Amino acid sequence: MRVNLLAFSIVAGLGLAQTAQAAEGMWVPQQLPEIAGPLKQAGLKLDPQQLANLTGDPMGAVVALGGCTASFVSPQGLVVTNHHCAYGSIQLNSTAEKNLIKDGFNAPALKDELSAGPNARIYVLDDITDVTAQAKAAIAGAGNDPLKRTQALEAFEKQAIAACETDDAYSCTLYSFSGGNTYRLFKNMEIKDVRLAYAPPGSVGKFGGDVDNWMWPRHTGDFSFYRAYVGKDGKPAAFAADNVPYQPKHWLKLANQPLGEGDFVMVAGYPGRTDRYALVSEFENTATWTYPSIAKAYKDQIAMVEAASKTNPDIAVKYAANMAGWNNTSKNYDGQLDGFKRNNVLGQKQAAETAVLEWLRGQGDAGKPALDAFAQLQTLGQQSRMNQARDLNLAMLNRTGTLGTAVRLYRLAIEKAKPDAQREEGYQERDLPAIEGGLKQMDRRYVPAMDRQFQQYWLQQYVQLPAGQHLSAFDKWIGGVDAKAVDATVARLDGSKLGSLDERLKWFGADKAAFEASNDPAIQYAVAVMPALLELEHQRKLRTGEELVARPLFLQAIADYKKTKGEFVYPDANLSLRITFGNVKGYTGLDGKVQPAFTDLEGIVAKETGKDPFDSPQALIDAVKAKRYGGFEDKRIGSVPVNFLSDLDITGGNSGSPVLDAHGRLVGLAFDGIWESVASNWVFDPVMTRMISVDERYMRWIMQEVAPAPQLLKEVDAASK
Amino acid sequence: MRVNLLAFSIVAGLGLAQTAQAAEGMWVPQQLPEIAGPLKQAGLKLDPQQLANLTGDPMGAVVALGGCTASFVSPQGLVVTNHHCAYGSIQLNSTAEKNLIKDGFNAPALKDELSAGPNARIYVLDDITDVTAQAKAAIAGAGNDPLKRTQALEAFEKQAIAACETDDAYSCTLYSFSGGNTYRLFKNMEIKDVRLAYAPPGSVGKFGGDVDNWMWPRHTGDFSFYRAYVGKDGKPAAFAADNVPYQPKHWLKLANQPLGEGDFVMVAGYPGRTDRYALVSEFENTATWTYPSIAKAYKDQIAMVEAASKTNPDIAVKYAANMAGWNNTSKNYDGQLDGFKRNNVLGQKQAAETAVLEWLRGQGDAGKPALDAFAQLQTLGQQSRMNQARDLNLAMLNRTGTLGTAVRLYRLAIEKAKPDAQREEGYQERDLPAIEGGLKQMDRRYVPAMDRQFQQYWLQQYVQLPAGQHLSAFDKWIGGVDAKAVDATVARLDGSKLGSLDERLKWFGADKAAFEASNDPAIQYAVAVMPALLELEHQRKLRTGEELVARPLFLQAIADYKKTKGEFVYPDANLSLRITFGNVKGYTGLDGKVQPAFTDLEGIVAKETGKDPFDSPQALIDAVKAKRYGGFEDKRIGSVPVNFLSDLDITGGNSGSPVLDAHGRLVGLAFDGIWESVASNWVFDPVMTRMISVDERYMRWIMQEVAPAPQLLKEVDAASK
Repeated sequence: MRVNLLAFSIVAGLGLAQTAQAAEGMWVPQQLPEIAGPLKQAGLKLDPQQLANLTGDPMGAVVALGGCTASFVSPQGLVVTNHHCAYGSIQLNSTAEKNLIKDGFNAPALKDELSAGPNARIYVLDDITDVTAQAKAAIAGAGNDPLKRTQALEAFEKQAIAACETDDAYSCTLYSFSGGNTYRLFKNMEIKDVRLAYAPPGSVGKFGGDVDNWMWPRHTGDFSFYRAYVGKDGKPAAFAADNVPYQPKHWLKLANQPLGEGDFVMVAGYPGRTDRYALVSEFENTATWTYPSIAKAYKDQIAMVEAASKTNPDIAVKYAANMAGWNNTSKNYDGQLDGFKRNNVLGQKQAAETAVLEWLRGQGDAGKPALDAFAQLQTLGQQSRMNQARDLNLAMLNRTGTLGTAVRLYRLAIEKAKPDAQREEGYQERDLPAIEGGLKQMDRRYVPAMDRQFQQYWLQQYVQLPAGQHLSAFDKWIGGVDAKAVDATVARLDGSKLGSLDERLKWFGADKAAFEASNDPAIQYAVAVMPALLELEHQRKLRTGEELVARPLFLQAIADYKKTKGEFVYPDANLSLRITFGNVKGYTGLDGKVQPAFTDLEGIVAKETGKDPFDSPQALIDAVKAKRYGGFEDKRIGSVPVNFLSDLDITGGNSGSPVLDAHGRLVGLAFDGIWESVASNWVFDPVMTRMISVDERYMRWIMQEVAPAPQLLKEVDAASK
Repeated sequence: MRVNLLAFSIVAGLGLAQTAQAAEGMWVPQQLPEIAGPLKQAGLKLDPQQLANLTGDPMGAVVALGGCTASFVSPQGLVVTNHHCAYGSIQLNSTAEKNLIKDGFNAPALKDELSAGPNARIYVLDDITDVTAQAKAAIAGAGNDPLKRTQALEAFEKQAIAACETDDAYSCTLYSFSGGNTYRLFKNMEIKDVRLAYAPPGSVGKFGGDVDNWMWPRHTGDFSFYRAYVGKDGKPAAFAADNVPYQPKHWLKLANQPLGEGDFVMVAGYPGRTDRYALVSEFENTATWTYPSIAKAYKDQIAMVEAASKTNPDIAVKYAANMAGWNNTSKNYDGQLDGFKRNNVLGQKQAAETAVLEWLRGQGDAGKPALDAFAQLQTLGQQSRMNQARDLNLAMLNRTGTLGTAVRLYRLAIEKAKPDAQREEGYQERDLPAIEGGLKQMDRRYVPAMDRQFQQYWLQQYVQLPAGQHLSAFDKWIGGVDAKAVDATVARLDGSKLGSLDERLKWFGADKAAFEASNDPAIQYAVAVMPALLELEHQRKLRTGEELVARPLFLQAIADYKKTKGEFVYPDANLSLRITFGNVKGYTGLDGKVQPAFTDLEGIVAKETGKDPFDSPQALIDAVKAKRYGGFEDKRIGSVPVNFLSDLDITGGNSGSPVLDAHGRLVGLAFDGIWESVASNWVFDPVMTRMISVDERYMRWIMQEVAPAPQLLKEVDAASK
């Protein structure tokens, strides 16, 4: 599950509810009293109440990276997460000559640790406050005007965040649960100096590559270590040579009992998005349009980068993180589509929706508000889908290098002219460091020739859109709606200077008038199309304002219906902290083959081809052949365990989540789900859903026998005492 | 409206109902009593009851060509229709050396007339019988099994047709109206020897080409003449040198009063399809997926043919009719999408559907059956849309040359093993001549190198489909799901001999076992994928069986609702005979420019560029410059009228329809609608809907001054006395 933000935002609302079964459920921490019984039943030895203390032991050790999960594993701020979660920063520190992606990295001492980049963050949870009443009051206060409702919620959010972020050590986020039935404000300490301490060689950390991604049996050493640094005063600070390691109050201890099949495991983490209670029409559109369209776009981009990399190895390095993301997402979508078909997800969703609607209809007037809300959500969905091809196109175009940068910079200039509280989210003072960081990082992820190809591709797609979806500002800027006009436009854009960091930083401080006077062709693009983009944003806000009322009404009806059936409900994933639990468990494949829960070292060697992605380091092959298990073998499998399966309910964003045993000790890191699981984002499949984790014993074996990091082994061993 | 069958069948059901306004309405002949008042009010001078006699004068002169409309204009079987309706047969008689598309054609005497091809037909209406009771009884008799319902209706259809076609002079068709609320059996005399008598040069008949298609002002001489031939016994017979012209009972007389702005006009013809009462979800899918996807496919095919034509002029000639169709359809779709946006068709449809649903909900139990039907239609639509990308792909692949031929031939062999009444429709004894005709014509419309490119394109699209939409039989036949496997497959298909007419005719008579033993790669394809294709057909029939009950229930509810509002209703177009009436009328363009109803000769010369498609014959230019109007000028416009507008409600299939004046005399031929009209297929737009016709005075002027056909002028003049 190599996912930061699992691609595109598809459906605006967030689903709710589902039966509590073994394994299913992304429980919010507030539900711990409800699930205490099931937790004990599944095998938890700790007092469930201990988990309710989110800043205590062990939950206080779990942190977010913004798209991934991680955890402290030493009192010196050492953090463990997935290799693929640290991939961006590994790439950032790589060049064609000094390729950390390929060779891995070990900092023998603290001073050798490398900055993970200006935008790398570690979020340490401090507090969660329920602000539902205030948020709903703000929306209600705006009356019947949908735009005003959206604006009221935005204003509330900004005000609540500003009040929460009294100290710039903290970063606060408002989360909406169940389509807006509950709002909670999360306060996190935001650590801004993140350093790379260790990464195994790519042939370990990404063993199996895109071939094995989402697959089982699996043998990937998907782990890396960061370290959190703070200023000498102990407060978060930007990277500085004399910063010191952060000292967390809590850190996870490594397991002291070997994990085996059937054992209790739990995961705490930050799953990004599920859509288990989307409308049938939203599901259908995702299955028929969104997933196929995005997968195709990504596959086309992958083909372009692969072709260009053949003659220019710099492109391979600079687009490696993008490529990993595109591959991952398109493979995920293919798997979801496959699961939709296999599990007749459409039929299941149709039956579930029909049951709720009929239950509401049976209630006469009492059911009417939710039925009206349903009808309104249908209508809103239809409206937004009318232009979805265009909207996807523009979103992708505005993610390309110079054009995307120009749009962000010009928008910033527009917003900066307003008082901070009135600026659009993402362009407030608090957001400036992230914007600046992005501008700085661009050099590492941008090659002009490649960027030109993407411009060409998306503009060409744009001109082929049906006329009814065209926007006159874009047509005019392109100077026509044919391939010739596109070619001329791309040639013209070649004159942009935004590929240069100095130039970008110059525009970072520029005012609106300067942009409007510029003759940089990318900036001229931003200026020309901005009114159209703002109008589209306005339209979206109108629809959001309608949804703010309709979505919670209908999702509450679903929850109420489920309660009449005696079923537990939990909200859809929304990037906020969740707990899921179950047991270590293999499965029977679609081919009828029984898959045990653990893979082992010998399985790596069996997969070896000597070619990427199955080209383990010679040291690994030698150690396995010599049966140098280094004390990490499990006698039940007669070797060192590498990866293991469990029946937990996770999704993208859970990557890097610590897997805890019955005693709350670290047994591994979640990093993927099997291909057959991914459709569970829409309807949970209890039979085929399996989480894949890397076993902590394999991580230690690698650091001892293959790519040694004796100082880290010592540090985590000491911390586990 | 250059349309045979306006591309793809999109929505299974047929809509119903709408207010009777001036111009709107595709009235079935049975509604004449209802519209007698409005007809008189619009200006009809004939007794409306005279129109009710479909085999009398003038309605008996109107004939169908199968996708186009035409009319008799002389007692010697002369038929006038559009140039673009005769285009296929003009192309069929053209070669690179003797290019009738370019040069036009005039047969000085009967013996010089050219066969329009073995599949050309003229259908002369004999009788219409209402068979609703019998059809509904057949469906009801099948009980709750949807497959059995579909089969029962198919069996009824075959039996009713067999009973109707007592004589092979007749061809009968069952039409379903309003989603199955009414069934009518049409009995037509089927004339099988159709000959081309006259076609103007392409630079007249297709003046403006694809640039002007759907556009106004317009100057296209879109007319040609066929002649119907029968055996010496007066009965329809296949082409034979000694056949004689058919003598119709009725033929149209040319107008004897000049047509002018505001005059009454009416059209009788065979409009193909409208979807005015499709569900909102069906409309949405058409606007967001179907139209854009098909338009893109056609545009890609057009680009391939254009590129290939540059080095091989044979391709340009052989794919000319396909190209015209693809251009026409993709331009139509673009126009519809534009209209959808301009007229907020989604909003209009949402409001209309909501009104009906609320009206039904207000009725308690009485409304429940229609509400249930609506819910079921929603569910069925969702199901069929899940695989629509795959289904479109396979439909297109199976339209390519050798593969499509192999599939048709092998299916024929399968069906021929059954008793005639149990065969699938399209493969009965009655269908064999059409199948054989298609096999013969293929040589004229097929170039192996081009066919290979289409195979490559569609197979490549197929392998890129999401895995969930793949069919194992296809994957296995392709031998993989990547570009390499596609290349190998296309190379292998090169060995097929189905490009040869002898070979096709050999297989036309072969039995199933012979196909299964064949080593022709195209036939091996048909054998390999047929089970999968039959399974898809089975799934479609299941859905159809559900729709047969649900669709008429919901469409009846729409009609009932409209009646409570005092509105007239008429069924959606379904290729059966319709009458529409209104007045000659210009319009105000979206640019605010007032467009008068008539264009004139001088307008042609003003558009001249000397290059295709604005390269009129020199004789035309000379005649216009010399103001040689030949007695056809209209003093109100000071020149000869070329094309004219009226506010009639037509669609594809109406092409070639005779336009009659208040006295029932021929004033022109309908051939197009303006671009701004085309969205009326979904919601009628009274402001912008305009039909474009070629004026009969221009037709005669061309035959007198530009591309002379004195013998035909004499014939039609004599017939008009």
